[in-house]
Amino acid sequence: MLREAVYHRPKNEFAYIYDEKTLHIRIRTKKGDAERVNLIHGDPYDWEEGKWLAQSIPMKKSGSDSLFDYYMAAVSPSFRRLRYGFELISEKETLIYAEKGFFEEAPLDDIANFFCFPYLHEGDRFRAPEWVKDTVWYQIFPERFANGNAELNPPGTLPWGSADPTPSNFFGGDLEGVISHLDYLKDLGISGVYFTPIFKAYSNHKYDTIDYMEIDPQFGDKATLKLFVKEAHARGIKVMLDAVFNHSGYLFEPFQDVLEKGETSSYKDWFHIYEFPVQEEPLGYDTFAYEKTMPKLNTRHPEVKKYLLEVGQYWIREFDIDGWRLDVANEVDHEFWRDFRKAVKEVKEDCYILGEIWHDSMPWLTGDQFDAVMNYPFTNGALNFFAKDKIRAEEFASVIVNGMHAYPQNINEVAFNLLGSHDTDRILTLSGDSKERVKQLFAFQLSFSGSPCIYYGDEIGMAGDNDPGCRACMVWDEDGQDRELHAFVKKLLSLRNAYPLLRNEGEFTIYHADSADNTLLYAKENEKEIIIGAVNQSESAKEIPLPHELRGKSGRDLLKDLDFAAD
Amino acid sequence: MLREAVYHRPKNEFAYIYDEKTLHIRIRTKKGDAERVNLIHGDPYDWEEGKWLAQSIPMKKSGSDSLFDYYMAAVSPSFRRLRYGFELISEKETLIYAEKGFFEEAPLDDIANFFCFPYLHEGDRFRAPEWVKDTVWYQIFPERFANGNAELNPPGTLPWGSADPTPSNFFGGDLEGVISHLDYLKDLGISGVYFTPIFKAYSNHKYDTIDYMEIDPQFGDKATLKLFVKEAHARGIKVMLDAVFNHSGYLFEPFQDVLEKGETSSYKDWFHIYEFPVQEEPLGYDTFAYEKTMPKLNTRHPEVKKYLLEVGQYWIREFDIDGWRLDVANEVDHEFWRDFRKAVKEVKEDCYILGEIWHDSMPWLTGDQFDAVMNYPFTNGALNFFAKDKIRAEEFASVIVNGMHAYPQNINEVAFNLLGSHDTDRILTLSGDSKERVKQLFAFQLSFSGSPCIYYGDEIGMAGDNDPGCRACMVWDEDGQDRELHAFVKKLLSLRNAYPLLRNEGEFTIYHADSADNTLLYAKENEKEIIIGAVNQSESAKEIPLPHELRGKSGRDLLKDLDFAAD
Repeated sequence: MLREAVYHRPKNEFAYIYDEKTLHIRIRTKKGDAERVNLIHGDPYDWEEGKWLAQSIPMKKSGSDSLFDYYMAAVSPSFRRLRYGFELISEKETLIYAEKGFFEEAPLDDIANFFCFPYLHEGDRFRAPEWVKDTVWYQIFPERFANGNAELNPPGTLPWGSADPTPSNFFGGDLEGVISHLDYLKDLGISGVYFTPIFKAYSNHKYDTIDYMEIDPQFGDKATLKLFVKEAHARGIKVMLDAVFNHSGYLFEPFQDVLEKGETSSYKDWFHIYEFPVQEEPLGYDTFAYEKTMPKLNTRHPEVKKYLLEVGQYWIREFDIDGWRLDVANEVDHEFWRDFRKAVKEVKEDCYILGEIWHDSMPWLTGDQFDAVMNYPFTNGALNFFAKDKIRAEEFASVIVNGMHAYPQNINEVAFNLLGSHDTDRILTLSGDSKERVKQLFAFQLSFSGSPCIYYGDEIGMAGDNDPGCRACMVWDEDGQDRELHAFVKKLLSLRNAYPLLRNEGEFTIYHADSADNTLLYAKENEKEIIIGAVNQSESAKEIPLPHELRGKSGRDLLKDLDFAAD
Repeated sequence: MLREAVYHRPKNEFAYIYDEKTLHIRIRTKKGDAERVNLIHGDPYDWEEGKWLAQSIPMKKSGSDSLFDYYMAAVSPSFRRLRYGFELISEKETLIYAEKGFFEEAPLDDIANFFCFPYLHEGDRFRAPEWVKDTVWYQIFPERFANGNAELNPPGTLPWGSADPTPSNFFGGDLEGVISHLDYLKDLGISGVYFTPIFKAYSNHKYDTIDYMEIDPQFGDKATLKLFVKEAHARGIKVMLDAVFNHSGYLFEPFQDVLEKGETSSYKDWFHIYEFPVQEEPLGYDTFAYEKTMPKLNTRHPEVKKYLLEVGQYWIREFDIDGWRLDVANEVDHEFWRDFRKAVKEVKEDCYILGEIWHDSMPWLTGDQFDAVMNYPFTNGALNFFAKDKIRAEEFASVIVNGMHAYPQNINEVAFNLLGSHDTDRILTLSGDSKERVKQLFAFQLSFSGSPCIYYGDEIGMAGDNDPGCRACMVWDEDGQDRELHAFVKKLLSLRNAYPLLRNEGEFTIYHADSADNTLLYAKENEKEIIIGAVNQSESAKEIPLPHELRGKSGRDLLKDLDFAAD
């Protein structure tokens, strides 16, 4: 077996606390190398005659990507302490792998050879809110969802949908508009709304915050937000707001104060200013990207931290919101996020904390910072396969399996799985205007694990390129909506809401992936039930073999509501 | 090249903040696979005509273990943001490796393909106290170092050195005894004293704490400790105490209160009691190992945490100690240690926090918990090679290189590198009473990086099996000391204290390791100087080639104080 391919390291996605009593242990081997793998494990203090008393249990193959096989086992150590190693078995050899490397036989005379998960502490467990596993999100860009109160329209507001979106035009979307369409969301099957920023700001996207403690008057006032949350909660819909703590807007008062007063400003350390007076050209302070209108906040400064943590608490305490989505989350320091989590969970223990991170995010998902990140690796994989035809079935299967093994299972269960957003081309556009492809995207997303999110309008077939094209006014005239697509998405959501297996119960397995045919068969299953997803990405009809054990059993086509017998 | 062998993941030992402006990036490849490796890197916001503007710099091969080569590069991104990938070059092919996998050509059209180190935040940097890099520790087991005040002798105290140590006998060692030998330590070249526990306890080892706020009366009183710290500091010697926060002793008042009052005790949640009244047989509460006299503390309980954090602060605030060594550190929850770090650093920013962890310890060395762990992998490697002859030169080189790449460099610089302790056989005993082997152990330890520690008496050739044998009374009669060994250790220390290269400046490289001859050549070097260590573990004289570039240069034998010309 290829020793160089074997990987395991404790206390990350390879060994973690799954629930109060259970550890998950995983290992990676070269694809096709091992026939089976056993977990050798025991309490470090169980000894007899100079030998450690370890047990051995079989591990389950949990998936394969293009290079590796992954195996996993769940263990519940009686005294919450665990030492362990792996027995890798192929036709030709048996190898023991442990912390000190490879052995011919288990080195039971010295426990220092083995891997160590010292103690299963409840306080060390990654704990995201339970409700997130059962939530389907709907992302709203508030300026473009619905104009419910024309009196709030900013100067120059255009009639709804009368023009293409531009980086600077306004159509008057507001909170009252969203309230009046809450029943639309409820009817669709949505259980969470995620708003891009609603705090006072200059632009139409509101990512350039002027005041973190005020609602943008274009969107309404605090009473309207209170009413919105109340109405949403009455419909079983959670509410998540967007916080931009990496940087403020140019017009944020403390920054204006620094521009005006320079070194004498009491806010001079709220930012990262190189020298006074503040220079804008060349840029004399840290910013988001090279954007001089987005000065980076000094989140290590006690006053800044205090202010932002109060923002984090205020909107929960006063408005009962259920989640924070954190913009540019990975460019803020880890300690800030640790304190942010403490502050937020102190006010509402089951508040969802979602970081915007486009890359591998394990360092933020260690239980002390975020509950989840926006799962762009999922997004990219799904888009490349279903929408763009850039990868074929086997590569897609590899991306999905790889993603599942990049994080602990309890993290995957609450991952924010989006297909599109205000920062990407719309999925219909990416799919070359193929509705079939869009349907497949939704079907996969809404039967996969995690916490899926639908970008407003995607469910009615809106098209558009990346910003500003993807930020068009929501189409409310049913003649302009793809009602058939809407019905399909609604059906998928009703199934997801009805079947726990479609959400985060049971195990996800890819049973078949064939790049030649471009077909895929995946399943979610527990001991009693199995739900199968069959994907044909080719242009012609294909046959996909069902798993052996299903032969002769009766089943039901969930999309068509038809019973059938499997053969 | 073997793709399965390539490994990199950001924000651990493969990509970390080294100093205020510098990131270290490392990658692992199959041994002998790549001819060279380049780091492709840039600011994520630098684009031109749809292409990311990345630069490429060569990486340095930083070592090899039995399976892998390691490469590293240091970069200082102007705007503290970094995206990067690797160019792996062999005779036959060039491969790009990045977050999304392997590519034939750098995928510069989409930055999501690359690895991300989002921001170099000073607050995220691992920062251990600077002084630790230059410290040589001396571990004292206080009951057995020196009896300075017979009036403190516990009942039944035996005359100094009159009997073999047993798990329960007493010889009356105390703080006054240590004070009177501070000049001995200073003369030897020691710059830090690490005491095993000195708080009020029952046993001779004092790991069974009765009162964390009192000094054991056998050792002295608080005035004596204050005097000790003052005298030590006057000699440039730091002081580290041992804290047992995982469990208390059986006689710890809160535990006694629970035993007595059961469920009505106000301390009932200070431990992990299964049911009341408390059962000892079978064990009705969590303990250290299965030791009923060592009840595990509930470090998540607010009162327990408050009490222990106050302990952490009190001995610094009142007695000016410089470090805490934390017993059974990995069985306490991470959140406790995060809060402990904050509490300790609040009182003394450059206090050293050292965890006792025998295994891979990266999860505690993320900057928010410990400054270092006891480096047992180093211990085991050194003992197996130098003392026990269990491994030969190439395997030893592999262990050392592997260890260096298991952690960031700034962690290695403060690693607590011990050879023996109160929990192991003495090094002379492990070496089969070979003084030559002991000398080699010391020579390697004291020329290697990290913060080395000498266990009391090892420098004068004391022997003894593991506990209790290794806890004999220090021999003060020079006739009973190996003065020649003492002089050798003193010479090594004077060299280490004189040459920064022998401490933590410059780079460590293994130039030659030959298992057949059992010889090793290693070096510490910077741009100006190189110090070479040559090891011959065989029974006969051997020749070891010097690095080419040294041919013809003049050098100095530091141990013999002789100049020579290299050829």
